[in-house]
Amino acid sequence: MNVLVPVGSLVTGARIVLDALEVHHLRVRRAGAGEAIRLLDGAGGVGEGTLELGRKDAVVTVGAVRHEDPPVPLVLAIGAGERDRFAWVVEKAAELGVTEIVPLETEHTRGVASRIREAQVERFRRRTLEAIKQCGATWAPQVREPVPLQQFAAEPRTGVRWLAALEGGVPPAGVGAQPVTIAVGPEGGFTPEERWAFEAAGFVPVRFGDHILRFETAALAGAVYTSIARKRGLDG
Amino acid sequence: MNVLVPVGSLVTGARIVLDALEVHHLRVRRAGAGEAIRLLDGAGGVGEGTLELGRKDAVVTVGAVRHEDPPVPLVLAIGAGERDRFAWVVEKAAELGVTEIVPLETEHTRGVASRIREAQVERFRRRTLEAIKQCGATWAPQVREPVPLQQFAAEPRTGVRWLAALEGGVPPAGVGAQPVTIAVGPEGGFTPEERWAFEAAGFVPVRFGDHILRFETAALAGAVYTSIARKRGLDG
Repeated sequence: MNVLVPVGSLVTGARIVLDALEVHHLRVRRAGAGEAIRLLDGAGGVGEGTLELGRKDAVVTVGAVRHEDPPVPLVLAIGAGERDRFAWVVEKAAELGVTEIVPLETEHTRGVASRIREAQVERFRRRTLEAIKQCGATWAPQVREPVPLQQFAAEPRTGVRWLAALEGGVPPAGVGAQPVTIAVGPEGGFTPEERWAFEAAGFVPVRFGDHILRFETAALAGAVYTSIARKRGLDG
Repeated sequence: MNVLVPVGSLVTGARIVLDALEVHHLRVRRAGAGEAIRLLDGAGGVGEGTLELGRKDAVVTVGAVRHEDPPVPLVLAIGAGERDRFAWVVEKAAELGVTEIVPLETEHTRGVASRIREAQVERFRRRTLEAIKQCGATWAPQVREPVPLQQFAAEPRTGVRWLAALEGGVPPAGVGAQPVTIAVGPEGGFTPEERWAFEAAGFVPVRFGDHILRFETAALAGAVYTSIARKRGLDG
């Protein structure tokens, strides 16, 4: 059973008081005192733990600890509208090994009532942690605060850069161990100016389906495809 | 603007009375009388249409009609638990060009309160049609009634057969124009007996991610991957 602990808390011999949500989950899953559990901090730390269950709280004693290297960057930058669908992308991205999720402020999301605001980012972060607990991944994606698109496009960046677009080409069979960044437009798409900003920054239009995909489908498709294409070099 | 019409109704010159849900959608999207619309029957039929809006109803006159060939089969057979997540797969599958969705009755879904029942299949079918209207695809996936797993595995089948499994190999870079069938276990997975039934029927274990994927993520990953790998021959 996987249990979340704060970053920095995984030191052999330490005793960690679990937070209320973790205690609730342990009770729902009928964990027993003395049970061996797997501790995850979402930043590569993995520890063995032994559980002591009190009446209202729970404490784990940390056994052997290891720290896994961070995965090669896989960044999803997504038009930040429709927060419910966005939250769903966040969960799936964590399962699929995405390392960073960037809500983009775009022309077509600026006026949308359901756009992503800074106050929601903490909830998305919690959701990435819940997802890694479920799937056993050792690194949770970082979720950035919403960033204006032009600012994001201007950031220095290396590796593969894709712009999800129906009129793009079929992505290459392999991408090897390079960083990959995928930009996905919001409902209504990017404007021509926004696309130019990405293309000027070296983003190549690529298609992940044969039809107009909803933004959450395109984002997920990009993550799925990259995680498989990673297993092959750039030449396929 | 795409509008759904019944299969068989697309004949040049015909007048089609739209159903109440379509009329509602037209009003929400502020369609105007005389507007040119694109008629879809979900079975390859595409027609031009001209709209007449009454006070409570709407009629379209069918112009030029064409019928597109059915796509190469892409079948998702999925453990039929958790109907909300299943409904979500149904929507995404329609966007991604899946041709058939099969809810499988498995050992681990038999006793689940939220398992798929025959009565829900009609709702899933409606959802596939709504999804193609949104994305403009001309064929909606078929949704079968729940099928016992052993019966499904025993059906004659050609082409690529994959079993989504964390311990499987990386899927090939291309699949060309062959039919593809992907089996995905429910929450809790397939039992060893169920896996044997698939492997005896020629299903090869394949991994679509590096972690344990929830069933809806694995199903979608399989559909995404196949739709891209279709663009390449079997040798990659």
